[in-house]
Amino acid sequence: MSEATNTYVRSNSERFLNELNEFLRIPSISTLPENAGDVRRAAEWTAAKLASAGLENVEIIPTERHPLVYADWLHAPGKPTVLCYGHYDVQPPDPLELWQTPPFEPTIRGGNLYARGSADDKGQMYMHIKAIEALFAVHGKLPLNVKFIVEGEEEVGGASIAKYVPANKEKLKADVALVSDTALYADGMPTLCIGLRGLVYTEVECQGPMRDLHSGLYGGAAPNAVYGLIELLAKAKDANGRITIPGWYDDVAEPAAAEIDSWKSLPFSEAEFLKNEVGSTTLTGEPDRMVLARVWSRPTLEVHGIAGGFTGAGAKTVIPATATAKVSMRLVPDQDPERAFASFSKWVADNTPKGLKMSVKKLSGSPAVVVNPSHPAIDKAAEAFKDVMRRETVFIRSGGSIPIVGEFASHLGIPTVLMGFGLPDYGLHSPNEKFKLENFYLGTMTVAHFLEKYGA
Amino acid sequence: MSEATNTYVRSNSERFLNELNEFLRIPSISTLPENAGDVRRAAEWTAAKLASAGLENVEIIPTERHPLVYADWLHAPGKPTVLCYGHYDVQPPDPLELWQTPPFEPTIRGGNLYARGSADDKGQMYMHIKAIEALFAVHGKLPLNVKFIVEGEEEVGGASIAKYVPANKEKLKADVALVSDTALYADGMPTLCIGLRGLVYTEVECQGPMRDLHSGLYGGAAPNAVYGLIELLAKAKDANGRITIPGWYDDVAEPAAAEIDSWKSLPFSEAEFLKNEVGSTTLTGEPDRMVLARVWSRPTLEVHGIAGGFTGAGAKTVIPATATAKVSMRLVPDQDPERAFASFSKWVADNTPKGLKMSVKKLSGSPAVVVNPSHPAIDKAAEAFKDVMRRETVFIRSGGSIPIVGEFASHLGIPTVLMGFGLPDYGLHSPNEKFKLENFYLGTMTVAHFLEKYGA
Repeated sequence: MSEATNTYVRSNSERFLNELNEFLRIPSISTLPENAGDVRRAAEWTAAKLASAGLENVEIIPTERHPLVYADWLHAPGKPTVLCYGHYDVQPPDPLELWQTPPFEPTIRGGNLYARGSADDKGQMYMHIKAIEALFAVHGKLPLNVKFIVEGEEEVGGASIAKYVPANKEKLKADVALVSDTALYADGMPTLCIGLRGLVYTEVECQGPMRDLHSGLYGGAAPNAVYGLIELLAKAKDANGRITIPGWYDDVAEPAAAEIDSWKSLPFSEAEFLKNEVGSTTLTGEPDRMVLARVWSRPTLEVHGIAGGFTGAGAKTVIPATATAKVSMRLVPDQDPERAFASFSKWVADNTPKGLKMSVKKLSGSPAVVVNPSHPAIDKAAEAFKDVMRRETVFIRSGGSIPIVGEFASHLGIPTVLMGFGLPDYGLHSPNEKFKLENFYLGTMTVAHFLEKYGA
Repeated sequence: MSEATNTYVRSNSERFLNELNEFLRIPSISTLPENAGDVRRAAEWTAAKLASAGLENVEIIPTERHPLVYADWLHAPGKPTVLCYGHYDVQPPDPLELWQTPPFEPTIRGGNLYARGSADDKGQMYMHIKAIEALFAVHGKLPLNVKFIVEGEEEVGGASIAKYVPANKEKLKADVALVSDTALYADGMPTLCIGLRGLVYTEVECQGPMRDLHSGLYGGAAPNAVYGLIELLAKAKDANGRITIPGWYDDVAEPAAAEIDSWKSLPFSEAEFLKNEVGSTTLTGEPDRMVLARVWSRPTLEVHGIAGGFTGAGAKTVIPATATAKVSMRLVPDQDPERAFASFSKWVADNTPKGLKMSVKKLSGSPAVVVNPSHPAIDKAAEAFKDVMRRETVFIRSGGSIPIVGEFASHLGIPTVLMGFGLPDYGLHSPNEKFKLENFYLGTMTVAHFLEKYGA
């Protein structure tokens, strides 16, 4: 481990933070059409920083939606190639009124940097860039070959990169991918994530009467689109959260006993998880499964929202003509997104209440992935982590979905090192998203050391 | 029947329409705080027109929300007194994009006047004022005593008039009330409505996790406020629309066999009702009840909308922390609104899914009412109707709620003549609300003749 790299990171920490703040002020919300210009600005900002860190062949690649950013440095013959991936787009910040300070005005409180994207993923992606800068500064070159591919559609399904990867296999060819978009299992605990859930995100549209009807004149004989959607969706799960769609669990692979055992040895308090992270009266889900298994290795079905009918202040007595729900399903090995979507669509058709028409649209789909922990890159990553943080590295899964990991596996044939420095309470996709500032620096050092070790 | 009155209405028809258009251009949406000034303007407009029609003691009565408008003419000693009621407020026009012409720019197409409030209730209330003007013009006086009370909160539960009536019994004392806020059973068919459903309108709030959570990291173990509300509300009715709340049907009185028989003799085509009015694939509701009974004499439960979670364009993977639903129940004789609300609240508490907190708020409540068809005023109204429209008057009910009719019955001890001139397809509370222009004139004549006959 090169102490010089650590020293470089520490002595430039203030500038690193100022740069990151500049990045976080760009509201690059990929799902909102009105923010397309901001997304573009974030891509340009990323490209400029890749170049100034010392990378070559920097390129802003246009797509059908938001651009990709590419860069590389390939002057270490005989050494492995690492493909660094990140995303410069962010989730919408609503509900805005719950933010203590505005989402796009980064603010430090209690050692944390509060801003939309601070941890997911601008702050973490920027660690990669700063690690490269540090390695160049200290060694005058990189210890191995590096490629960067940074996207702007991660929060909206990543359609463009999903097309780009299979069409550019040679350009992106590498030995391993490096992604920092996850969290440490606990503060101070080096963590490598070796499993992710997949996701099928859908929109279900319900059409009832031809127009909104007066609930007095028609109530009792006319179908209600909002109620019909409620009736349908309520049937999707039983009271324990088990999905009732026929065959849903047919392809679900149980984790190996050894992996389950290792989860049992992780520090976990159901009471603290409930109180500090979830904050409801009780946890839910399959009672015969440990909580970590419920969120890491079991499929889910969630309704993210329903639009339709009257929801303003006061009262309006309509029978709504239309309603739309956002419904997603998290997938686990070995569920296939296409097959899952087909089962869901069929189930919707089979269970549509009387008088209504339903249509289901797929917004995105990606499979779950698991990585072999004995791969040499994972090994070196675990060592680098341990060296910087002075504690044994643990192997966990995450319930989230990083579709690109699946794309890298299937099209480039490479595993991904998931080396994330967020914390469990960092408010991912929520108001008051934060990134512990010290982890931003530790993360930059760990990434640099991993590249040093893997290139040694 | 005075032909002179009819002639007066016909020869002033263009001016009547221009005045009504002026009224309809005021967006007096009582539920939206931002329209309070427009609501006030509509009250002032009404007061001015009552005065210019020849009525006296015109008064704009302040309330806690929107003003009441009062006027009278009491110079017919020994003659009965009729209390004319109407409302100058309207429903919100959304969804705006479904209007062929803007809701507050009245437009004539195919003999219909299209505008929010054209039939409900500005156009119908204005018939009363124009009938008074015609009677003064033809006879130099009115054939009986008349009082007007016009409110601006009918579409938001009518709280102010509900307080005003019991506190001003002497001022409002009358032999009968006259309300034109319903529809003809069919075009050209004189119709008196002798029954209305009641309404309890509620807001159900659901609290899940303390903040919106990432559905990847927490999905499987954390409660979802939107899904919890869905689970709850789906249990409120069975597949045939029968309400499952314990004891809900205990107080439901069945209509007399003779009344049911008279409904069976009304022209009614289920196929046409489905095609022209509802416009869905099939009708719903209790299969063992005729459609007219389902909408006139059976209780309902409707969800008007759910707010909560993400419903914008694209995808956002949140587990929503909160959700709110607008839920109303139509009541029939002899259901008590307080008791109904208590049963619903208890049912919500008893059926709240795990991990969630629910609260129920009552926005308004009114009982169902039925009027005795052999009352002399109803009798004269039926005659006037028949004379003007040259066809036998039919007696129906309406599934809607006009809470004031219950207030008049319980506090003033008087029945209400429900003499409405809308049509079944007039788009009440919907986009493209319309009022057949000829019915505006026929209605004005019928109201005038009713007052002549009842005062004779």
